Amino acid sequence: MIDFKLIVQSENARAGEFHTAHGKITTPVFMPVGTQATVKALTPEELKEVGAQIILGNTYHLYLRPGTEIVGRFEGLHRFMHWERPILTDSGGFQVFSLAKLRKLTEKGYQFQSHIDGSRHLFTPEKSIEVQICLNSDIIMCLDQCLEYPATHEQAVEALELTTRWAQRCKEYWEAETGGLNHLFGIVQGGMFTDLRQRSAEEIMGIDFPGYAIGGLSVGEPKELMMEMAAHTLPLLPADRPRYIMGVGTPEDLVELVDLGADMFDCVMPTRNARNGQLFTERGTINICNARFREDEGPVDTSCSCYTCRHYSRAYLRHLYTAREILAYRLNTIHNVHYYVNLVKEMREAILAGRFDRFKKAFYSKRQ
Amino acid sequence: MIDFKLIVQSENARAGEFHTAHGKITTPVFMPVGTQATVKALTPEELKEVGAQIILGNTYHLYLRPGTEIVGRFEGLHRFMHWERPILTDSGGFQVFSLAKLRKLTEKGYQFQSHIDGSRHLFTPEKSIEVQICLNSDIIMCLDQCLEYPATHEQAVEALELTTRWAQRCKEYWEAETGGLNHLFGIVQGGMFTDLRQRSAEEIMGIDFPGYAIGGLSVGEPKELMMEMAAHTLPLLPADRPRYIMGVGTPEDLVELVDLGADMFDCVMPTRNARNGQLFTERGTINICNARFREDEGPVDTSCSCYTCRHYSRAYLRHLYTAREILAYRLNTIHNVHYYVNLVKEMREAILAGRFDRFKKAFYSKRQ
Repeated sequence: MIDFKLIVQSENARAGEFHTAHGKITTPVFMPVGTQATVKALTPEELKEVGAQIILGNTYHLYLRPGTEIVGRFEGLHRFMHWERPILTDSGGFQVFSLAKLRKLTEKGYQFQSHIDGSRHLFTPEKSIEVQICLNSDIIMCLDQCLEYPATHEQAVEALELTTRWAQRCKEYWEAETGGLNHLFGIVQGGMFTDLRQRSAEEIMGIDFPGYAIGGLSVGEPKELMMEMAAHTLPLLPADRPRYIMGVGTPEDLVELVDLGADMFDCVMPTRNARNGQLFTERGTINICNARFREDEGPVDTSCSCYTCRHYSRAYLRHLYTAREILAYRLNTIHNVHYYVNLVKEMREAILAGRFDRFKKAFYSKRQ
Repeated sequence: MIDFKLIVQSENARAGEFHTAHGKITTPVFMPVGTQATVKALTPEELKEVGAQIILGNTYHLYLRPGTEIVGRFEGLHRFMHWERPILTDSGGFQVFSLAKLRKLTEKGYQFQSHIDGSRHLFTPEKSIEVQICLNSDIIMCLDQCLEYPATHEQAVEALELTTRWAQRCKEYWEAETGGLNHLFGIVQGGMFTDLRQRSAEEIMGIDFPGYAIGGLSVGEPKELMMEMAAHTLPLLPADRPRYIMGVGTPEDLVELVDLGADMFDCVMPTRNARNGQLFTERGTINICNARFREDEGPVDTSCSCYTCRHYSRAYLRHLYTAREILAYRLNTIHNVHYYVNLVKEMREAILAGRFDRFKKAFYSKRQ
């Protein structure tokens, strides 16, 4: 099983660590999203330079293109994409739900057509785990049923029950196929209902996984509802396993969720916003296209030590972005991923030093 | 004046060197094109890693966006774009000729409208030099009159004569404004007529410049005609000044032109073709989209030592390109620019070792 070690807990905020086949991960940790076997615009060396410990790959995308067979020839994603640190893969369920065409859900799994070429596929819990093992993912996620927002209590119950049955199948397949070498995480669903979140958490914990994720958040619900669900669910999870909040969120979300006891995060926000010219700074978020940066010789963030801030001015970044130069996407992405990875690292340091409350106050006073 | 030192001449092929305000340049040299204050997709560090000694900036583009005033705030292009090695800028004439709208040519200069926002501008020889000085270019090019292909002898005479008068004005302005700190190169025109190439060379050399370029080649003429013009013009130029062939060409072109006595080259081919998936290798040019690379675990070029070839397979590069990932453009560009820079470097080494003929034979036997 997983060797998760809780090093410090300060109120609910936690600093921990655990090992994978590709190295140690210290928590809290932010995982940049590398959908198609690349974190968009960055090399693995750049990811390491900004301090990324682990990245996320999207099983749905990789299964369709380049295909499991090709990645398998490289014994998995690591060698294929030249990234030797840990990788977490999602189950593919969320992308089937949000991208695939003509999808049909049965007890067996998801039937769908590829958004790329219309080809037909069946994604069962077993298939999802099989693909993730073939990708040689360090952390494998159970296939779950995603729920639209808003959903009724009845719909949420159905999804929860199917998710539990699938989680059982995932675990059985995983135990038979890997001997537990890659960590398999269970996912708690339950929509926006606290009673169902509780029930899902109990059922998933009953199956017993090396780690637990909270899924189905950040799907269009108000921020308060998202935080209410996280606040309700996180304390239910065992203290001796990593807790992963899937697909969330803003810098403020991460600070709040760490404060509630979350350990792991992934989000496309730093990479996607970078490509839209939105840059995160200690003093708030800026849009680099803004005319006020036209002649600005200063860096994006004077307190930032990333490659972009060390060497380039806002005026240059604005020029590159206006001219739609590829280097714009690169430099913006480096900065934003550094911001996220560093924010979470600073939270860890604050927790270890017993000053998370002060960190949080300073964070908000500057960001506003 | 320029301190061009001819180190070895083997038949016509030359190995030389000269200094600029931003460092020494050894020749023959290939200059990657950095149109809008960036060599598309690359950082300055990556350019240095592939061995680029000098890059080219496009005056027309930079004058329009971000504008001379903004680059001037950074005391020129070097600090603006974080590149401390030499920069050559063109005069802007070729882009006015090929990109601008409603252009009108008079004795005074080019009147035109910006292709970006339709704003009206007048580009005189003095203005071109003024802008290039403001960019703090290490090698400044005279404004010349570009000629369409095909053109009549009469049209070519007119363009040649105007080019000479403008060259005189460029030199006078440059001497008054810089005291000769940045090198100013004259450009030989004359269309596809050997008598006019000779006349232009004599007139431009009569004005006396630190270096000489041959312009108006690779504008749509057959390859044999281009080579005939270069072969006719190169021997006319003084041996003690660098000779620059503008906007040319394929790897084969570079080998032939070095053999004819050319020292400097620029071309968008390595960068543009990279973005179209065309990769140069010792054994010929490949298109990375090709289905035969789907499962190919080997590098683009087994004899190549670039970052891309050291770490990535053809299968991965094909996947990235098919998925239209930004990293595809980056890795392809690194490889192609490395190929060009390295090819010219190998020619220099062969010239210095007195084995250019053997180099050329081996080059062709492998490329075919």
